[in-house]
Amino acid sequence: MFNTVTIIGTGLIGGSMAIALREKKLAKKIIGCGNDEESLQQALSLGLIDEILTLEEGVAQADFIYIAIPVHAAVHVTAKVLDLVNDAQIVADAGSTKEKLCRAIADHSKRKNFVASHPMWGTEHSGPAAAVSGAFTGRACVICEPERTGENHLLQTESLYNQLGMHIVNMNAHDHDIHAAYVSHISHITSFALANTVLEKEREREAIFELAGGGFESTVRLAKSNPDMWAPIFLQNKENVLDVLNEHIHQLINFKTAIEEENNTALSALMQNANRIKRILPS
Amino acid sequence: MFNTVTIIGTGLIGGSMAIALREKKLAKKIIGCGNDEESLQQALSLGLIDEILTLEEGVAQADFIYIAIPVHAAVHVTAKVLDLVNDAQIVADAGSTKEKLCRAIADHSKRKNFVASHPMWGTEHSGPAAAVSGAFTGRACVICEPERTGENHLLQTESLYNQLGMHIVNMNAHDHDIHAAYVSHISHITSFALANTVLEKEREREAIFELAGGGFESTVRLAKSNPDMWAPIFLQNKENVLDVLNEHIHQLINFKTAIEEENNTALSALMQNANRIKRILPS
Repeated sequence: MFNTVTIIGTGLIGGSMAIALREKKLAKKIIGCGNDEESLQQALSLGLIDEILTLEEGVAQADFIYIAIPVHAAVHVTAKVLDLVNDAQIVADAGSTKEKLCRAIADHSKRKNFVASHPMWGTEHSGPAAAVSGAFTGRACVICEPERTGENHLLQTESLYNQLGMHIVNMNAHDHDIHAAYVSHISHITSFALANTVLEKEREREAIFELAGGGFESTVRLAKSNPDMWAPIFLQNKENVLDVLNEHIHQLINFKTAIEEENNTALSALMQNANRIKRILPS
Repeated sequence: MFNTVTIIGTGLIGGSMAIALREKKLAKKIIGCGNDEESLQQALSLGLIDEILTLEEGVAQADFIYIAIPVHAAVHVTAKVLDLVNDAQIVADAGSTKEKLCRAIADHSKRKNFVASHPMWGTEHSGPAAAVSGAFTGRACVICEPERTGENHLLQTESLYNQLGMHIVNMNAHDHDIHAAYVSHISHITSFALANTVLEKEREREAIFELAGGGFESTVRLAKSNPDMWAPIFLQNKENVLDVLNEHIHQLINFKTAIEEENNTALSALMQNANRIKRILPS
């Protein structure tokens, strides 16, 4: 239980964290900070946070500071927050990329106050109104470079995530970003690109809506995601994202070739290979 | 209410139709036919069907014959069934492609007995054990070339689908196949290709499983689908599928270029365009 938690960025993730902290009685007071005044006011009126303060004031009052803002901003804000904290305060982030951030604060005198974390949860919605109860339950939370965090800071943060129903997976920041490109970032790109494909080709909106039961909804769901959040992720994780995107285009060309050549054997083999995902992600 | 319904192909769709017919009390007796003996035996032991008969026997006894088999087989089986029926019997299919089938039986003397239909429902699972209750409720059912079906045959089939909770959408077979390529077939290809991408790049299965909360599950779900069903669909709808697949590869290359050039404006614009899907498919 913390006396005061300050959440920087009160959108989908920060807001859902606020709900979870209240429900599990893990914070007596929750302060909201950030650049997005509208988001903060909405979080306040929704009761997600108790008070809006400046970054300096919010950090000064907090035992635990949670940074849940787009990843390009997180690089600067994390360093700024670490400049402000005393030895006991804990700072953690929720960003979808880890390598640039970890490198940026690697030599900070307060590096041990920081927990580089990525709770593996999200939806296609954004903003405080999209925050939900039970968001993190049953999911993994990646913590990178745990050896660089102070023992007490790490234990308290792990305990917090555990109490939200998450289990901790440790990884170095480099590996995290590779895995995140494979299992999250590429899914968002394919979904955005699929929406653009259908919007380009299918001029009859009514037909999309009527026929969407054929599988389209689930594959296109992520295309509703917030560009302000995702553009910085793709750019920060450029190398890994391009690597997996090139492979994906290559795999699509395999399908294209098999269909062009009416090669039923090759086409079936591609799908049988894809079916192996069942063994990894059972229903 | 039909006295006897014969379902040819007792897999996901045929089996779910059987469950719906029983629950809505729309058939006194349900007969199963088909080439897949294992599927038929399973459907019988699950209570989906009352009896297994040969195609000839099954058709002879039925008021209503429902064809729910892979689309390449449906072309031949539908013609064969129409050879066997009298003027009163109704034949309908559930295939995901319509143009080849409609063309193949266009000049059949029993064309008016046939309803070319496509209930817009499915899951990634297959076989009788995957059949579920309430499968078709709230979904659209496309009926192609209704003017080529006899009035009574059409009315009874529409009434059946309506009683299962579906609403009818009329389309010509050519347009159906174009729309199906956009809103269903391409989603399956991207999902299969995404699974292959991740299986190729991500050698650590544990990482896929642990981190899948990041959006991967929903986009890869359809990659579990049955190749025996989907290969014939892609090949029968080759032209439309290739058209939309080429556009999709083009859209992915747009993302690739924007990321390579670190062009935040272009990248955001691509995603903002994709966000328009929200207006067509609200949550």
